[in-house]
Amino acid sequence: MTGTTLLLSLDLTGTLAFALNGAITGVRAARLDIIGMLALGMVTALGGGIVRDILIGALPPATFSDWRYLTVAAAGALVAFFLSKHLRRYALAIELADAAGLSLFCVTGASKALEHGLGPAQAVILGAITAVGGGTVRDVLVGRVPAVLTSGLYAIPALAGATIAVVSMRTGDYGVPAALGAALACFLIRVLGIRYDLNAPKAREVRNPK
Amino acid sequence: MTGTTLLLSLDLTGTLAFALNGAITGVRAARLDIIGMLALGMVTALGGGIVRDILIGALPPATFSDWRYLTVAAAGALVAFFLSKHLRRYALAIELADAAGLSLFCVTGASKALEHGLGPAQAVILGAITAVGGGTVRDVLVGRVPAVLTSGLYAIPALAGATIAVVSMRTGDYGVPAALGAALACFLIRVLGIRYDLNAPKAREVRNPK
Amino acid sequence: MTGTTLLLSLDLTGTLAFALNGAITGVRAARLDIIGMLALGMVTALGGGIVRDILIGALPPATFSDWRYLTVAAAGALVAFFLSKHLRRYALAIELADAAGLSLFCVTGASKALEHGLGPAQAVILGAITAVGGGTVRDVLVGRVPAVLTSGLYAIPALAGATIAVVSMRTGDYGVPAALGAALACFLIRVLGIRYDLNAPKAREVRNPK
Repeated sequence: MTGTTLLLSLDLTGTLAFALNGAITGVRAARLDIIGMLALGMVTALGGGIVRDILIGALPPATFSDWRYLTVAAAGALVAFFLSKHLRRYALAIELADAAGLSLFCVTGASKALEHGLGPAQAVILGAITAVGGGTVRDVLVGRVPAVLTSGLYAIPALAGATIAVVSMRTGDYGVPAALGAALACFLIRVLGIRYDLNAPKAREVRNPK
Repeated sequence: MTGTTLLLSLDLTGTLAFALNGAITGVRAARLDIIGMLALGMVTALGGGIVRDILIGALPPATFSDWRYLTVAAAGALVAFFLSKHLRRYALAIELADAAGLSLFCVTGASKALEHGLGPAQAVILGAITAVGGGTVRDVLVGRVPAVLTSGLYAIPALAGATIAVVSMRTGDYGVPAALGAALACFLIRVLGIRYDLNAPKAREVRNPK
Repeated sequence: MTGTTLLLSLDLTGTLAFALNGAITGVRAARLDIIGMLALGMVTALGGGIVRDILIGALPPATFSDWRYLTVAAAGALVAFFLSKHLRRYALAIELADAAGLSLFCVTGASKALEHGLGPAQAVILGAITAVGGGTVRDVLVGRVPAVLTSGLYAIPALAGATIAVVSMRTGDYGVPAALGAALACFLIRVLGIRYDLNAPKAREVRNPK
C-alpha cells in the first residue's frame, strides 16, 4: 500500500464519517426526509473540500469531480437514513469518527493548499477551513450557529494539525509518517477537549451589566 | 426560432419566475424593504446558476456576466415589490412558475455541466443544484431551513429531469425535444407532488422515545 | 505616498474596521469564544472581497493570499476580544469605521471588477457585494437575517459609491480624487441614514389583513 493510497483511504474514511454525522445531525435538528439527509450528509462530507478548492482556484473541486468521494458521501448518508433508529447507541463512535475526519481533512487540506503555491499561513487556515467547512455549512442549513464558532475545542485542533503538516512540509520532513503525526495530534487534542469538556476562552461580558 | 433562442427564452422565463418568487418570499418571511426584495429576488433567480458556474469553474458566472439575466431578475423582483398587495391571488400561478423554473434550470444546468466535461453523475447533481440552489440561498438568508431539505417533492423532480437530460445527451438524442421532455417530466412530478402533497420518506424516529 | 499606497491604506483601514465590527457582533449575538470571534471577525473583514474575487474568477482571492489583509483582519478581531469590555463606549466610532469600510470596499470592488473586464452594471453590483458581502456572511453565521436586507440605508450608499466610481472610470476621470469622492459620497449617505434613521421603502402589507 503506497502513501498515496493510504492517504486516499484515510480521506475517504473521513468523508464517510462526516456524511454519517451530517445526515444524523440533519434528522435530529430538522426532521429531514431522505433527500434532505442525503443532501445534508453530502454537503457535510464534501463541503470543506469544495470551499478549499474554490479558494485555491482548483475547479471543478476534486471532491466533486472524483466519483469515489461522491459515492462514499452518499453511502454514508444512506446508512444514516436506514440505521437512524439504532445510531444513538453509537454516539461515541460517531463522535470519534467525526474527530478522525477533522484530523485527516486539516492535514490533507493544508498540504493541498501548499502544493498550489499558497503561503504557509494561508495553508494553515485552508487546512482548518477544509476540516470545519462542511460542518459549518451543515449548521447554517439547519439554522444553528456553527459549532466551530461557539463550542469546545474544534477549530484549535484543526489549526494545530494543519500547522504541524505545514511545518513538516516546509522543513522537508513531510511524508506519510508526518501526515499521520499531524492528524494524530489534532485527533488527541479534539478527544481531550471532548473528554474534559475544554473550551476556548470567552470575552468578558459585554452585555448590559444590569 | 432556433433551438438556442427557445432554450434561452425558457431559461429567462425560469429566471423571472424565481425572481418573483424570491422577492415575495422575502417580503412575507422578513418584511424586507425594496432593496432587500431586489437582492433576495436576484439571489433566488441567479443563485443556482452562479453556484453551478463556480463549481464547474466557468467564471465569471454566465448568469452574472450576461445582462439579460440580471435585467430579467431585477425586473421580476421589482414587479413583486409594486404588485405585492395583489400577488396573493396569483399564488397558484407563482407556484407553477416556480415549478417551471425548477424544470428548466435542472435541464440547462445538467447540460452545461456535461459540456464542461464533468461525468454524468456530477452533471445530474449539478443540474439539481442549479434548480434548487437559488431557493436554498434565499431560505438561508431569511433564516429558514431550506425547503429542499424538508418539504415535499422538490429535489426529486429536479434530479429526474436532470437524469433524463444527461441520458439523452449521452445517447446522442439530445435536442430541443429531449430537453423539453426532460423539463416536462420534472414539471409533472413537481405538480403532482404539490397537488397530492407527496413527501419523500422520513427516517424513523431518533429522538428520545419518552 | 502614491495613489496605490493610499488606496491600499484605506482598504486595510476598512478591513480593520470590519474585523472589529464582526468580532463584536459575534460576541454580542452569540457569546462566541476567542476562536469564534477571530473567525467571525476575519469572515466579516475578508468575506466581501473573497466573494467578489470568486465571482470574477480571480483565484485565489487577493484578500486571502495577501498576508497583510489576513494580519490586519486577525489583529482587529483580537483587539475586539481583549477590549470587548470597553468597546461599548466606542459604539459610534465603530459604526463610523464600519461606514468607512463600506465606502472604501464599494469603490475598490467596483474598480477591480471593471479592470477584470466586467460590464459597468456588473461592476456596480460587484462593488456593492464587496461592501456588504462580509457583513451578510457574518449575519448568516450568527443566525440573523442580514442587515442589508432589512435595515436602514446600507446597500443604497454602496450602490451609489460604486456607480460614481464606475462612471468616472468609464469617462476617464478615475484616479485617487475620484475614488475618494465616490467613497465620500457613500460615506455621507450612510451617515445621514444612521443619523436620521432613514429606510428604503417597504412593500405594502402582504400578510393577511386580519
